[in-house]
Amino acid sequence: MRKNYLLTPGPTPLPPEVCQALGKPIIHHRTPQFQAILKEAGEGLKYVFQTQSDVFILTSSGTGAMEAAVANLLSAQEIAITVEGGKFGERWTELCKSYGVQAEVIKVEWGKAVDPAEIEKRLKNNPDIKAVFTTLCETSTGVVSDIEAIGKVVAKYNAVLVVDAISGLGAIDLKTDAWGVDVCVSGSQKGFMLPPGLAFISVSKKAWDLIAVSKSPRFYFDLKAAKKAIQSVDTPFTPAISLVIALVEVLKIMKQDGLDNIFKRHRIMADATKAAMKALGLELFAPSASSDVVTAVKVPAGVEGEKLVKTMRDVYGVTIAGGQAELKGKVFRFAHMGFIEEFDIIAGIACLEKVLKEAGYVFKLGAGVSAAEEVFLRK
Amino acid sequence: MRKNYLLTPGPTPLPPEVCQALGKPIIHHRTPQFQAILKEAGEGLKYVFQTQSDVFILTSSGTGAMEAAVANLLSAQEIAITVEGGKFGERWTELCKSYGVQAEVIKVEWGKAVDPAEIEKRLKNNPDIKAVFTTLCETSTGVVSDIEAIGKVVAKYNAVLVVDAISGLGAIDLKTDAWGVDVCVSGSQKGFMLPPGLAFISVSKKAWDLIAVSKSPRFYFDLKAAKKAIQSVDTPFTPAISLVIALVEVLKIMKQDGLDNIFKRHRIMADATKAAMKALGLELFAPSASSDVVTAVKVPAGVEGEKLVKTMRDVYGVTIAGGQAELKGKVFRFAHMGFIEEFDIIAGIACLEKVLKEAGYVFKLGAGVSAAEEVFLRK
Repeated sequence: MRKNYLLTPGPTPLPPEVCQALGKPIIHHRTPQFQAILKEAGEGLKYVFQTQSDVFILTSSGTGAMEAAVANLLSAQEIAITVEGGKFGERWTELCKSYGVQAEVIKVEWGKAVDPAEIEKRLKNNPDIKAVFTTLCETSTGVVSDIEAIGKVVAKYNAVLVVDAISGLGAIDLKTDAWGVDVCVSGSQKGFMLPPGLAFISVSKKAWDLIAVSKSPRFYFDLKAAKKAIQSVDTPFTPAISLVIALVEVLKIMKQDGLDNIFKRHRIMADATKAAMKALGLELFAPSASSDVVTAVKVPAGVEGEKLVKTMRDVYGVTIAGGQAELKGKVFRFAHMGFIEEFDIIAGIACLEKVLKEAGYVFKLGAGVSAAEEVFLRK
Repeated sequence: MRKNYLLTPGPTPLPPEVCQALGKPIIHHRTPQFQAILKEAGEGLKYVFQTQSDVFILTSSGTGAMEAAVANLLSAQEIAITVEGGKFGERWTELCKSYGVQAEVIKVEWGKAVDPAEIEKRLKNNPDIKAVFTTLCETSTGVVSDIEAIGKVVAKYNAVLVVDAISGLGAIDLKTDAWGVDVCVSGSQKGFMLPPGLAFISVSKKAWDLIAVSKSPRFYFDLKAAKKAIQSVDTPFTPAISLVIALVEVLKIMKQDGLDNIFKRHRIMADATKAAMKALGLELFAPSASSDVVTAVKVPAGVEGEKLVKTMRDVYGVTIAGGQAELKGKVFRFAHMGFIEEFDIIAGIACLEKVLKEAGYVFKLGAGVSAAEEVFLRK
């Protein structure tokens, strides 16, 4: 017997309703039956995105929707700001480079959030900047950005604000319309509690004006084709039908819970996780801006980071994430996002304690778990 | 009670093993557990593609892999032949246009297959042609191309041969290596009996030489990144995990059956379907080159084509496909591909007979079914 527990920042565990929906016989996508599903999915996505704009469903990983944003908004030689505070911020820069877009990179120390004033300074200095590419929650560091504040800044200029909300949307607050997010990108395997395979992208009026004149080559990710198709409740290319059907199930659950309750659940789980880490004498990697989605924790001296994650997973069945790129072996990332509740967090902390103890790290067994219980009891 | 029967050229019905695999709890993709799955999938794909080259798994519809072919092989201003004998051949031309590639279009009458000599004439006239884009089975007309003959022609020149085998691979024969197919593109929801959401692409040595110098922008579909990732049994971006897990189940079934038996099953189903149509006095749309994947049939005078398809689907639960683009209302397309066996074909023909009879079309009830039975009994 081997039971698996998943506490990674994507994919997150799947609700049983999703598993059931995925296992259903397939239906054809050019039918009134599937059109009803597409319509319901579109309305549910608007609710989660907190937008009145259309939200397009792409069959791809989240990166596909990030590419859609770059390729549809900008042409070669144009200038865009990219905020780089981790692996996924760097992806915006790489995407810009791929399309010949001049990336004006704002380097942010890993573990810190970008200062909106820095974005304003750049926008003021260069009126030719067409877009600002940011990240809601930088999965590689656990840092959350202040998108509301960035939105207020960008709204004053001609540039559009693009947010990679792949990690975070549907788990923490992001008010697409109210905060002035022109293009919001997300994916299925995080807050949406689905398997990976779908990406979502919303587009504001201000962004459509750029899309109308962009000369970058694109076909599969062409948003003009997506817009034309959505007007007849269709998709330009065959969609991942089973994932869209499961999406509707997830959106029902999310609507029933309500966004405020969902955000509150994530906040409490994050607080409990962080309290547990502190009680274990561990240091958060990003104490000033740690998100409610995933917590990056410094691996204590004397413990091997990669081995810690492997032991939890391969010996005990509890999958958390290790560090990526320059943080490899230096942090572990404990996720509290998606189809996860308080007792999953407790289970994950107990496993962490067990493996830390076995690795010779000194602390009082149960200290992390009881600190988390304390938070859950209080809130 | 409503039972649904699916006889469309993608998606095809799903084997129960696939439904079960899709409904399983999710696992993380950066684990030894998933690597073992990726490895098995890669080996199985090589078997079905009949190639020694790597076959890359993309999370997208088949069109994404078509775009990958164009964007990775060619740069703007370069010249390629596109063979247009239906809606999906036209897609190659549209893709080339999107990337600024000059498409030398070979227009083929819808319902006919391209003459390999015509391709040779063009290649001989213009040594600058870098690629020839063709279609194995043109889903919009049911026509199958003679890829083996085309491969012999293209092999003599510098150009690479690219085949859209989305519809057909794993159902009818296509020997990627032996026939000189440099880039073979397929999708999950046809011969592979999966939901849509995955695309596959194989790349020959000759094609890698073009990829090395292509300047077209690409990121998500970048095959160099895919090649780098596959070397460490990984994917460059989060894959559609549940679909890849189900793919392994399908590949097991396909290996057990053996390609020859699979091709034979499709051939017999196609023969039976075509015999039934003739027995009903109906005319095939592409009598000279009708594929073993899908049969396009002319709607007889006095019958409304779109209504025929709708009645079969909405009143009786049997989904076949109508005509696309210029064939809208003029043909219906009866698929015999994927997880379908002889008695599904019989059921579909019986439904067609019922609706034709109700529409006032004159024929002997049971004539189609018994003609099909005859074929199945003989073979």
